[in-house]
Amino acid sequence: MAKVVIVGAGVMGSALTIPLADNGHEINLWGTKYDQEVMRSIRKTRTHPCLGLALPGSLHLFALDELAHSVEEREIILLGVASGGIKSVMEMLGPFLKPGMVIVNVAKGLEEMGDGEIITIPQVIARALPQQLRSHIPVVAIGGPSKAREVAQRVPTSVVFASSSVRAAQRCRKIFTTPRYTVQVTSDVIGVEVGAALKNGYAIALGMCDGLKKREGVETMNNTKSTFFAQAAQEIALLSRMLGGRSSTVMGLAGVGDLYVTSAEGRNITLGELIGSGLPAFQALEEMRKRRETVEGYPAIGIGYRLARKFEDSGKLRMNQLPLLKALWSILYEDKPAHEVLFSLRLMA
Amino acid sequence: MAKVVIVGAGVMGSALTIPLADNGHEINLWGTKYDQEVMRSIRKTRTHPCLGLALPGSLHLFALDELAHSVEEREIILLGVASGGIKSVMEMLGPFLKPGMVIVNVAKGLEEMGDGEIITIPQVIARALPQQLRSHIPVVAIGGPSKAREVAQRVPTSVVFASSSVRAAQRCRKIFTTPRYTVQVTSDVIGVEVGAALKNGYAIALGMCDGLKKREGVETMNNTKSTFFAQAAQEIALLSRMLGGRSSTVMGLAGVGDLYVTSAEGRNITLGELIGSGLPAFQALEEMRKRRETVEGYPAIGIGYRLARKFEDSGKLRMNQLPLLKALWSILYEDKPAHEVLFSLRLMA
Repeated sequence: MAKVVIVGAGVMGSALTIPLADNGHEINLWGTKYDQEVMRSIRKTRTHPCLGLALPGSLHLFALDELAHSVEEREIILLGVASGGIKSVMEMLGPFLKPGMVIVNVAKGLEEMGDGEIITIPQVIARALPQQLRSHIPVVAIGGPSKAREVAQRVPTSVVFASSSVRAAQRCRKIFTTPRYTVQVTSDVIGVEVGAALKNGYAIALGMCDGLKKREGVETMNNTKSTFFAQAAQEIALLSRMLGGRSSTVMGLAGVGDLYVTSAEGRNITLGELIGSGLPAFQALEEMRKRRETVEGYPAIGIGYRLARKFEDSGKLRMNQLPLLKALWSILYEDKPAHEVLFSLRLMA
Repeated sequence: MAKVVIVGAGVMGSALTIPLADNGHEINLWGTKYDQEVMRSIRKTRTHPCLGLALPGSLHLFALDELAHSVEEREIILLGVASGGIKSVMEMLGPFLKPGMVIVNVAKGLEEMGDGEIITIPQVIARALPQQLRSHIPVVAIGGPSKAREVAQRVPTSVVFASSSVRAAQRCRKIFTTPRYTVQVTSDVIGVEVGAALKNGYAIALGMCDGLKKREGVETMNNTKSTFFAQAAQEIALLSRMLGGRSSTVMGLAGVGDLYVTSAEGRNITLGELIGSGLPAFQALEEMRKRRETVEGYPAIGIGYRLARKFEDSGKLRMNQLPLLKALWSILYEDKPAHEVLFSLRLMA
């Protein structure tokens, strides 16, 4: 039995209480100040309001001022906050961390620093660790296709645990794996995080096809969607290789697997649909803001594009090796009409 | 302007009249004896009855006894018959073929010979050529995600032309490419054909998830579908490499692209859905037969499995490197219950 604390009561962290409880681990849950309404609801109903599903009865709930207590003697710190909240939560956690603990983290992707440097979320976490603990607390990132609600419903799910410490990832695999939650281990953190970030962006292109087909008066545009799917896989692989990741990762759960689940439904698809049906990007984004829905794929295309431009500047690639990224950037950031850009798109021949 | 004859009035051959006519080529269409009702309908209404769409007015229609005439002076013979009809049509064509002609072929996949040898469709065609012409008539195979109806509707489509003669494939690319029909060229015929065959089989697994989710009472099983998608890509790549194909092909249009379009809808998905919802395979197959729907993925899993067993026998792989293929085989050919097999499936960790 392992002792785990989940820091942040978001949907994914909370959903992971299911495989953890199925394995009989002792689980603490602490919510940030933004999670307090969720925590009240869990305390009252034992149900996570955003998941609409019951959480394990064995879960220990902690109040906002009990972070220290919740982290005590824990071997696994499951960081369940969104990427934007990582820094501040890591600052709060700092004083309570001890060598030997492992941080497992559910937020995925890339982050752009103030100076334009682009790093992975596990790097953001590692940098936020107290100096003296940096080589003593490994970070394990969860990648691959997993919708929180399905994890909580015990729908068979396979994920990737990526870490520069393969031993830490393997230890976590033992703790998390159940018959319904399967874990692969990889050391290719970069491949996993590049895939995780960019799949959101490329999913917008698949959503655009759903919008375009109405505009064009055809029932399906599956040929175009499939072309974009394959093209996305190739462009993600190229950018990943540029950063030091492996192509084989893109062929797996954290690449085409994650792209597939993201293209099934979600906010990126909705944004793409709005734009494909004829709305300029700025209006579609305004519409999503009104619905209070953040679209992760939008900044991802910005980051991917700036990354590609850097590699072009240093002579490592040419932008026309990334025609779909370029097309998405011009639609999303220059408000070019999707039908014009996508219908005249020339992929590599 | 090129002179083209389409041999066989199936949906894909007929749909390709659209890009060909858009490029101003002279197109003959000859139907086999099985196509005569379709040909009568086209003659009368200029509409292909199965596509429900108008064909180009410039199309020259030929009667059943006019094959010789239809092939005269043609540089491109577009073979539009299903794989089962290839041998007999090639025998009929034999006497009229001349050096310098190119055969472009729309049927895709693998074929099992009487002696158990497994070869690609382009090999079937090459072997059916008159002896003295074998090195003078190149075969170009069309791979990648293309639904015929969408091609005929000018939905942006990207395909792969695969040939051991890259020059012939490039010549065909010039003839077929339009702003809405894009052609990539590859010499990896094996990679394209292995992908084309097996994607049908693996799509059944994705259909099974749609059936299983009803059985399990969950709204979605996208985590499982995405896992199977990524696993399928990896297993197709492995089998393709065993036969001499390239992994990179599986990352492209003819691999994940074709798998994506096949998983969107179709008979393989329907079969999988029936089985996933609880029907044993033999009953589900009986049901498909009643609906007069052939499911390409079913024999594909048989061929893939026997191929894998051969490689296992010669020590080149272990069957547990192909867990999803093994699982599909036991469900489809041993009538094992899908939920038992798939819910206890252990993928590579």
